[in-house]
Amino acid sequence: LQRSGRKKDERHKDMEIVVIGAGGWGTAIAKLLAKRHEVNLWVRNRSLASEIEKKRENRKYLPGIKLPSNLEVFTDLERINQGEVLLMAVPSFAMREVACRISKILSSRKAIVNLAKGIEQKSFKTMSEVLREELGVDEIFTLSGPSHAEEVGRNFPTTVVIAGQNIKLGKRLQAALTTDRFRVYLNTDIKGVEYAGALKNVIALATGISDGLGYGDNARGALISRGLAEIVRLGMALGGRKETFFGLAGLGDLVATCTSTLSRNRLVGFHLGGGKKLKDILAEMDMVAEGIYTVKAAYDLARRLKIDVPITKAVYEILYREADPLDKLKELMARKLKMEEV
Amino acid sequence: LQRSGRKKDERHKDMEIVVIGAGGWGTAIAKLLAKRHEVNLWVRNRSLASEIEKKRENRKYLPGIKLPSNLEVFTDLERINQGEVLLMAVPSFAMREVACRISKILSSRKAIVNLAKGIEQKSFKTMSEVLREELGVDEIFTLSGPSHAEEVGRNFPTTVVIAGQNIKLGKRLQAALTTDRFRVYLNTDIKGVEYAGALKNVIALATGISDGLGYGDNARGALISRGLAEIVRLGMALGGRKETFFGLAGLGDLVATCTSTLSRNRLVGFHLGGGKKLKDILAEMDMVAEGIYTVKAAYDLARRLKIDVPITKAVYEILYREADPLDKLKELMARKLKMEEV
Repeated sequence: LQRSGRKKDERHKDMEIVVIGAGGWGTAIAKLLAKRHEVNLWVRNRSLASEIEKKRENRKYLPGIKLPSNLEVFTDLERINQGEVLLMAVPSFAMREVACRISKILSSRKAIVNLAKGIEQKSFKTMSEVLREELGVDEIFTLSGPSHAEEVGRNFPTTVVIAGQNIKLGKRLQAALTTDRFRVYLNTDIKGVEYAGALKNVIALATGISDGLGYGDNARGALISRGLAEIVRLGMALGGRKETFFGLAGLGDLVATCTSTLSRNRLVGFHLGGGKKLKDILAEMDMVAEGIYTVKAAYDLARRLKIDVPITKAVYEILYREADPLDKLKELMARKLKMEEV
Repeated sequence: LQRSGRKKDERHKDMEIVVIGAGGWGTAIAKLLAKRHEVNLWVRNRSLASEIEKKRENRKYLPGIKLPSNLEVFTDLERINQGEVLLMAVPSFAMREVACRISKILSSRKAIVNLAKGIEQKSFKTMSEVLREELGVDEIFTLSGPSHAEEVGRNFPTTVVIAGQNIKLGKRLQAALTTDRFRVYLNTDIKGVEYAGALKNVIALATGISDGLGYGDNARGALISRGLAEIVRLGMALGGRKETFFGLAGLGDLVATCTSTLSRNRLVGFHLGGGKKLKDILAEMDMVAEGIYTVKAAYDLARRLKIDVPITKAVYEILYREADPLDKLKELMARKLKMEEV
């Protein structure tokens, strides 16, 4: 494979970056960073890998976006040792398995950055916790915020947050991952960033349901602000900082997701609101809607921690108890009149 | 005029309510409350008043929505003394003048509720401060939150907040204004609620500009969350409570406005982003976009209080200094890399 056409950026010297996972987000960020760095993209599926290599396009997960010639594709996991930075872009349900495979190969110290937004089923662990356990590396970072892959792939302006406890390394990563169309903020509250990214998908399902019922901007605005209040209550009980939930990884991503035609979580909600059954919706979908799993975890966690999450509860009952969306939304509107509390 | 067809609501006995101003919002809330109460709507313009009375529709400001037969329309301001509750639904630039006229007529104690979202030019006073001064009444309330008139008029589910310092009277108003499609929360931070409602229009202009430039959900999500951080900084310096800005009157209304096809502020921004000049946009508009005035006040206040408001500054320069929208958005993306702070 050739390494041609790569332009150097003034702000930061080249790094060797490995992206694990060629879904939409992994592919988009690999494309973005190939402008400045040597980027290698690990593709699990061999036929997808050779298609991406030949066509310079990931037609399955990021169709219509040309990938640069210097972006290298590989399938043999052994090659990850070439990189200094490892971006983990696999769905949350596959994170532990892939991390376990990587742990057996990893031979040198690397900066590890999680890109997934989800909570592990049953254990309720965040992705950085899963990675820390499997890789035995203390310094895990999570990159999150409003960042639809389709837009990053098209070079639309995007602003995200990178979170981790090692500020020095965090600043290096912040500088390395920034481009003129991709602005990275630094945050030390990794727990908050991870719970924010996961829990927002539950509220995206709720606003999708509202839209599917034919409700309008007023209802969506209310669900987003009351939904964020639920995220704050639950996320703080889980160890996140309040401010984080009001930042890019919380509010920013919540808004982008709840108002987007690109969000799979919102789309699932939309079909539910329109009267479809969950299993029929899922049968027609090719990709993962993380919120479907997160709502279960969020509901269980809230019950255990005795936290009031009426919107999450309504979404849970619509998804898993076949409750009627209209009845549930009416119930939310008819609750006892209250003082406004965040 | 007849009072027929009025249904009584179980939750609260009828009140006599007077709505001042027959713009979109005044008309919509008059229609909503006429379900439960005796409602009289003051219309400044006589020909509009007689048209509304005859056609049972406000074709100018709330077209396509049938008004109930028990909603009474009047033009003689003297009649306001019939009501126990006065809802002030005039644009902020006209509030002082109308309040001054009312002050000369008012003969009995009433609950006064402001519905406008703006800051007075030059004085930078909130609408409740203007009303307090003009009417000599201490207990002013403000109703705010994500509440597009077109949706309330169509009976779409809507959730708002009523703010004032007298909790007992606040609770009575909360109960009186609630219907099964209009849920009212109570909040004591009237300053916060008013600054939130006014300042969100500045960010709506910003997201409109971004949309007009062809940017996407990621940019909008970033502008909303970084924009809310500006609202919080400035609003707290002006005496509002942080939580209020993250509630319905702040975040909720911000989201509804920034993602709506119904928002005039967003629309002005959209045309600016598309390359039109402000004066040409305004020449084509029939109604008020409050944000155009608010951005001036916000910019001046932030300078005086030495508060960093990069998005507000960019909007101000695009509107009043003929700055290029694309340059300004690029500048926002290229600022020094930072820690995320709300």
